[in-house]
Amino acid sequence: MPFDLSAIGKKLGAVTHAYTERDVMLYALGVGCGTDELQFVYERDLKVLPTFAVIPSFPAMLNLGGAMQVNPAMVLHGEQRIELAGPIPTSGTVTTTPTIRAIYDKGSNAVVVVETESLDEKGKLLFRSRSSIVARGEGGFGGERGPSGARNVPPDRKPDKSVSYRTLPQQALLYRLSGDMNPLHADPDFAKLGGYDRPILHGLCTFGHAGRAVLEAWCGNEPARLKSFEVRSSGVVYPGETITTDMWQAAPGQIVLTAKTERGEMVLSSSAAEVAS
Amino acid sequence: MPFDLSAIGKKLGAVTHAYTERDVMLYALGVGCGTDELQFVYERDLKVLPTFAVIPSFPAMLNLGGAMQVNPAMVLHGEQRIELAGPIPTSGTVTTTPTIRAIYDKGSNAVVVVETESLDEKGKLLFRSRSSIVARGEGGFGGERGPSGARNVPPDRKPDKSVSYRTLPQQALLYRLSGDMNPLHADPDFAKLGGYDRPILHGLCTFGHAGRAVLEAWCGNEPARLKSFEVRSSGVVYPGETITTDMWQAAPGQIVLTAKTERGEMVLSSSAAEVAS
Repeated sequence: MPFDLSAIGKKLGAVTHAYTERDVMLYALGVGCGTDELQFVYERDLKVLPTFAVIPSFPAMLNLGGAMQVNPAMVLHGEQRIELAGPIPTSGTVTTTPTIRAIYDKGSNAVVVVETESLDEKGKLLFRSRSSIVARGEGGFGGERGPSGARNVPPDRKPDKSVSYRTLPQQALLYRLSGDMNPLHADPDFAKLGGYDRPILHGLCTFGHAGRAVLEAWCGNEPARLKSFEVRSSGVVYPGETITTDMWQAAPGQIVLTAKTERGEMVLSSSAAEVAS
Repeated sequence: MPFDLSAIGKKLGAVTHAYTERDVMLYALGVGCGTDELQFVYERDLKVLPTFAVIPSFPAMLNLGGAMQVNPAMVLHGEQRIELAGPIPTSGTVTTTPTIRAIYDKGSNAVVVVETESLDEKGKLLFRSRSSIVARGEGGFGGERGPSGARNVPPDRKPDKSVSYRTLPQQALLYRLSGDMNPLHADPDFAKLGGYDRPILHGLCTFGHAGRAVLEAWCGNEPARLKSFEVRSSGVVYPGETITTDMWQAAPGQIVLTAKTERGEMVLSSSAAEVAS
């Protein structure tokens, strides 16, 4: 078993991440923004997509991954939640402190739940995140199974709003330059080792596309209006496919959502956003 | 007149530019590489597109531009030549020394010719470049007209080889992250100030696409086989258009080429490459 269960609940070493406006624009292009969303990809009146919150936290995750000695071909993002304290600055240095909340034994797979808290240079909270990392084939160590079951279930009616974005064939090659360089998303041979026909899109890139859909449909593309956003990954997207995000208003300010590709496969389920009106 | 003619022939201050593999991959995506050209966009066995040579030299140009007080909405790349001393390293620090070779008065426009020489950390020559920068509306100061007329004229037959690449609608937004942040390539209002209906592709992005075409058609995609490459910009490309590069072998190792878009407009003329067999 590659996991040190005694790490659960302990704060781990903080990781500092500096980023520039160029990184912010590259991220936005990586999750599919283009000429229609100039405010996210051009420095005049630049705004930061709220889902960028996962980028400064990523090096902290990567450290965990290294410590845990799991095979990157077998690692996937299972769930991701972000909570925004306000708009993310267009450049800066962010200090992120990760805590391992749980390591669940799902049978064949293991799931590591990591929470992070990210502060700006002055110690002000910018955002929190919670990530569930699936290590395929690493279960069966006799640990707790953890919570399961449906959350954020859409109401039984057609979506209130639906937004489709077609990804680029080179979307993963572009997204990975924002920090997650796992070869699973670039290298056909490596993808085959992981059991895929070809490189797959990063789960967090799908997350970014769905975040844009929420922002467009419910927030007038105003990042300050997205308070929290959480997704559960339930299928893979291949670069070049179209991601359609279906959204329902469950209560004022409470959106539940799912996403699928043109293959009909559900790629995000049990997903939700809190938005300000 | 915004030009200091006494600067002609003098070596100007050297500019140092550090770049990483990430910058090399971002450049390749910026000039249209994708999953079919993994060697330019993925770190395993990464190779550097020869046209990347213009990137470390760009800050040196930019300094000149600043010194000359010309309006960036009115500046275009006229001609660009690069000479490679060998394959470009996948990361490093390059020191570039620019020399202003000439400032020509073309009537309504002025043309500034700048040559650069770029060395690696050990002082070894990596590449040379020569750029002709067109400052629209800045001519008429009574200077020399400079050379004109046709060069690199294609033979009177159908192209020996022809390669088409479709650019992305967001191609200029992506390319500009490699260093040329002129708003002319992003901002619709700024583009209108320059007399364009919408933002145009960087001349050097078109240059990069044509360089890929030469590499694919004549060099088996092996960067070491491209010895020199020169283009003359003769029209603009709008992001989303397809760039078709027509190529003729004028003599062994001597390629002449032109490029056009689906509008039929010639965007590169009087262009050439030297390739090793």
